[in-house]
Amino acid sequence: MFKINEDYLKLPGSYLFSNIAKKVAAFQEQNPKKQIIRLGIGDVTQPLAPAIIESLHRSVDEMGHAETFHGYAPDLGYEFLRSVMAKEDYQSRGCEIRADEIFISDGAKCDSGNIQEIFAKNNRIAVCDPVYPVYVDTNVMAGRTGIYDPDSQTWSDVIYMPCTEENGFAPSLPDQVPDIIYLCFPNNPTGATISREALQEWVDYANRNGSVIIYDAAYEAYISEEGVPHTIYECQGARTCAIELRSFSKNAGFTGVRLGATVIPKELKCGDTTLHSLWARRHGTKYNGAPYIVQRAGEAVYSPEGKEQLKKQVAYYMNNASVIETGLREAGYQVSGGVNAPYIWLKTPQGMTSWEFFDFLLEKANVVGTPGSGFGPSGEGYFRLTAFGSYENTVEAIKRIRQA
Amino acid sequence: MFKINEDYLKLPGSYLFSNIAKKVAAFQEQNPKKQIIRLGIGDVTQPLAPAIIESLHRSVDEMGHAETFHGYAPDLGYEFLRSVMAKEDYQSRGCEIRADEIFISDGAKCDSGNIQEIFAKNNRIAVCDPVYPVYVDTNVMAGRTGIYDPDSQTWSDVIYMPCTEENGFAPSLPDQVPDIIYLCFPNNPTGATISREALQEWVDYANRNGSVIIYDAAYEAYISEEGVPHTIYECQGARTCAIELRSFSKNAGFTGVRLGATVIPKELKCGDTTLHSLWARRHGTKYNGAPYIVQRAGEAVYSPEGKEQLKKQVAYYMNNASVIETGLREAGYQVSGGVNAPYIWLKTPQGMTSWEFFDFLLEKANVVGTPGSGFGPSGEGYFRLTAFGSYENTVEAIKRIRQA
Repeated sequence: MFKINEDYLKLPGSYLFSNIAKKVAAFQEQNPKKQIIRLGIGDVTQPLAPAIIESLHRSVDEMGHAETFHGYAPDLGYEFLRSVMAKEDYQSRGCEIRADEIFISDGAKCDSGNIQEIFAKNNRIAVCDPVYPVYVDTNVMAGRTGIYDPDSQTWSDVIYMPCTEENGFAPSLPDQVPDIIYLCFPNNPTGATISREALQEWVDYANRNGSVIIYDAAYEAYISEEGVPHTIYECQGARTCAIELRSFSKNAGFTGVRLGATVIPKELKCGDTTLHSLWARRHGTKYNGAPYIVQRAGEAVYSPEGKEQLKKQVAYYMNNASVIETGLREAGYQVSGGVNAPYIWLKTPQGMTSWEFFDFLLEKANVVGTPGSGFGPSGEGYFRLTAFGSYENTVEAIKRIRQA
Repeated sequence: MFKINEDYLKLPGSYLFSNIAKKVAAFQEQNPKKQIIRLGIGDVTQPLAPAIIESLHRSVDEMGHAETFHGYAPDLGYEFLRSVMAKEDYQSRGCEIRADEIFISDGAKCDSGNIQEIFAKNNRIAVCDPVYPVYVDTNVMAGRTGIYDPDSQTWSDVIYMPCTEENGFAPSLPDQVPDIIYLCFPNNPTGATISREALQEWVDYANRNGSVIIYDAAYEAYISEEGVPHTIYECQGARTCAIELRSFSKNAGFTGVRLGATVIPKELKCGDTTLHSLWARRHGTKYNGAPYIVQRAGEAVYSPEGKEQLKKQVAYYMNNASVIETGLREAGYQVSGGVNAPYIWLKTPQGMTSWEFFDFLLEKANVVGTPGSGFGPSGEGYFRLTAFGSYENTVEAIKRIRQA
């Protein structure tokens, strides 16, 4: 008789965003006339930029003729995309990353979920708290996290690094040395950033202790301030300790297009084995490349027109962020994030729990956000709003929250 | 210090198609003027059908306007695609598969590699021999296959089911009961099929013994004969023992577009846990959906125009198959496959090994095929040619092979 992967059953039953969806559906059913505004899930709303649309049409036409048809993509992704990423995302910033160290994929969610596969089961992971749930859940499914304690909502074998008001939502170096450290800056969900100096400390720590850092740079395009690193490879020594995940979802609105990349420098090794070779093996064995037309769309992100258009798109969302941040601050809320990230992290008023505040906002303002506790125990008492709505909805939502 | 997944290191060093590529590159370098014809890898060459191109253009335009823009796709895939598949691939054949039992993905390679994750590590797998390498390799990476014996090229914990001339390239029920049985019909690499009655025996065997069948139906569109099942759900009882993998790569030329699906009936359980719920959890946690435009392209495959155009495309490749099959048979080769599948499986002449015949064909005919031994020990002494080239190249290749 076949047996199932019992580790899957350890996952707490319901998923944050399904819970939210259920609550919202129930409210809407009882209040069919209320116009609900959703600033919860991190999905974009602006259409693809014209340069990307043009590129898609062009490559679709190529697929319609035998001479320009493209079948299976190269394992690591097309050279044209890997080269432009190496140049624009890294070499132009003085970071030594080569095209053949970049693996193209169908998105950072897949990569951040799959990357743990190349590590041994008995590695110990460390995550920020609060955190994007995929890092932890995929390690649970791999049997790497020990026992779940429903009271503290923590796993026995995971090192949690609280990110709270006290430390400016930046984690401190952990007391116990982890094998794998997940970092995401600009951060989801808190919108916090890390300075280059602080990130350098993490790189030094990892190199000193033989840890590997998985650095999620999905929100890099939203950085507006100097001194905030756009990639971990701005730090000395990162090539021997860091993997970086890149996404096209938020800088170019590709949530429904699906494109991402993972960078693994060839110096990153365990003994004689490069992690690059292991990830290449995984890519070659379990993956068959991102669609040609989508990789061409990714290339267009780096064209002069694409860059110009996407700068405006990011500015549009960041204007929303500013509307939220300023509006809530003026209304007396304690707010962070929203300056180098499309997420605003606010402290719930009057000691409400995150879910109490969720219900309050839904009922009184008909606005949906995300309860901070859904991202981890240290998220309790916080709430996430995203800047990915339309301007009109964002303004209206803040007006309603202020009146609530 | 972090540690790597040691199971990855157990994989024999080089991958079949990389070896072929290296040999071909070396030959071409020494013989720059020779025109090499590739009938090795299973990649298509015909352009996407007009109905699909139109659908892609239409959905690209939708992505360019806020009102019709699509962000994150639903976890299981878009309803429009799941519904049409349920109707056209299953219900129209009298098979009871519902839309919510179909999970849309970016291809059957990913699905066939990832599906083992929902099973316990100590499950025992059975595979046909020869076999598509992904089934075994992904189980190696998961630590499920025991020790590799380089002499026999087999793993200690894998049950091999030889498919040879003697059994008409259809596996016999194994002596030891496996937990997970991988079957692929029409078969890659042999091009063999299975009758409905024979497949029913497998379904009965699996239900009797508590095994699960992973049925790869990637080549279903190439079936030309009556009595050959298009889906395992044509068999009684398959809903309680079988998962089916579907691909758009070969029926619609999507090797560079990337679309596939996995079907898991809700009756398929281990104790009280449905495999459907586990795969849903994996999809929700590690995957973010196939691109909207690609799912729309998949929908167009089932439109009246799409069906008509793709019927011709399949006929084009099957005409190639017939050219190869007939030409080689006339030349005295012992040939099988090519009738319900785009693969021709031929016995190497004069007791040559598969690789000897590879070198012979490359040097004497400048034709590239795939050595049967690359698919498993029982593939030794065989050779695979594919029908996915252009008609002109196929005719020329057979002419050259006959002259060699």
